Amino acid sequence: MVEDAAGLQTFLNGFSRVPGKKILVHGGGKWVTEMSGKLGVKVQMIDGRRITDADTLEVVKMMLAGVANKNVVSQLQCFGCNAIGLTGADGNSILADRRPVVKGIDYGFVGDVKKVNTELISHLLELDIVPVFASMTHDGRGSMLNTNADTIASAVAVGLATNYKVELVYFFELNGVLKDINDPESVISDIDSTSYLSIKEKKLISKGMIPKIDNAFDALNAGVHSVKICNSTQVSYFTGKSSNFGTTILL
Amino acid sequence: MVEDAAGLQTFLNGFSRVPGKKILVHGGGKWVTEMSGKLGVKVQMIDGRRITDADTLEVVKMMLAGVANKNVVSQLQCFGCNAIGLTGADGNSILADRRPVVKGIDYGFVGDVKKVNTELISHLLELDIVPVFASMTHDGRGSMLNTNADTIASAVAVGLATNYKVELVYFFELNGVLKDINDPESVISDIDSTSYLSIKEKKLISKGMIPKIDNAFDALNAGVHSVKICNSTQVSYFTGKSSNFGTTILL
Repeated sequence: MVEDAAGLQTFLNGFSRVPGKKILVHGGGKWVTEMSGKLGVKVQMIDGRRITDADTLEVVKMMLAGVANKNVVSQLQCFGCNAIGLTGADGNSILADRRPVVKGIDYGFVGDVKKVNTELISHLLELDIVPVFASMTHDGRGSMLNTNADTIASAVAVGLATNYKVELVYFFELNGVLKDINDPESVISDIDSTSYLSIKEKKLISKGMIPKIDNAFDALNAGVHSVKICNSTQVSYFTGKSSNFGTTILL
Repeated sequence: MVEDAAGLQTFLNGFSRVPGKKILVHGGGKWVTEMSGKLGVKVQMIDGRRITDADTLEVVKMMLAGVANKNVVSQLQCFGCNAIGLTGADGNSILADRRPVVKGIDYGFVGDVKKVNTELISHLLELDIVPVFASMTHDGRGSMLNTNADTIASAVAVGLATNYKVELVYFFELNGVLKDINDPESVISDIDSTSYLSIKEKKLISKGMIPKIDNAFDALNAGVHSVKICNSTQVSYFTGKSSNFGTTILL
């Protein structure tokens, strides 16, 4: 989403008005792919996950920690939202393990989250500062690691759930989890663990949604109060009284 | 200096051992020039200052806020130094005005520092976190701005001088201010305002040093305790007892 200048601006304007303490996590994969092309760096994806070799890691630093993060932070500042850009290396906020070779696949410089340093994040929140994470972590041994943005959002939400009532929201390009992928209005308003089993059995939802919803249940089981999946254009609804939009995931 | 991997690592190892609260400011101009070349972005310099058009600004975000900053932060973390990467946009820490067209020269997206938000920086220092600034500021209206690293170092030092005893150090590739540019050992150990006048009159120092020393006197006049100009290889000397290296600037 960070790659669409007009859409991003509208989203950030809405986000800046959401009341309460908040944190934003962003990726920027399209820009990484585009810049890789310009620089002649080979793009390799497996099941939607990027193989991050040394050259790709440099491009990820450029586009996620550099361009995307600074665009988001400077625009939030313009909307009166005191944002601070972070990666997992900054303040050692998210430590990760480099992913081992799995079934013969070496994902390269990809991190699996090991520990979220909630102390620093809480300090920033208490100062009314809004942390904006680019989806990168570090290994504590001098290397940055590329990490999935949904995973970071969930890990940070779980980490903060000990001291805060955390609502985790996944913004994406649809109005929620759809019953019928061809009908944008067929949003399932609530999913709980029972209905999820039945939905999965009946293959009602697209394969791409499964990891997102699995992540959501993991977060709920680990103490997060609620999870919502909705359209990034619906961010303005968070300032209103109705929560009747998107898909809410409950235990 | 960030562009030389081995030199940088040695520097950061030394820097991580310097006792007391500390802040690092870095540039990365060589990388900006190199990446501009790869991407076909025109490089234009006037008196050593980069003309920063919209395309160049993107490259500056990539290489300074992205690659250079995250390399420095992740390596400092590896050396046990709890660094946090910042630009002036982050936490609104350094607000700047876009430089007006001067004598027909439009520097583009270049910022002249207007205000340093010492409150956030002090908070981080009190948490034993080490702020690492990439040399970029923002205009508060949604745009990042390219800003000279020496200027940022001096502005931050001045801002903090109200509450801290600040020693400002400029690291560069020589052992200090030289009497004879061809003799690396001809370091002038101390310069005060009187001797500076005489040195300038006799044209003993190179033209390139003048703005650095002028900056130093501005910082001292604004409350900074002392300024030193020395070689980045001498960072380890800051852990020792002797201050007999580099050039010390006094009022």
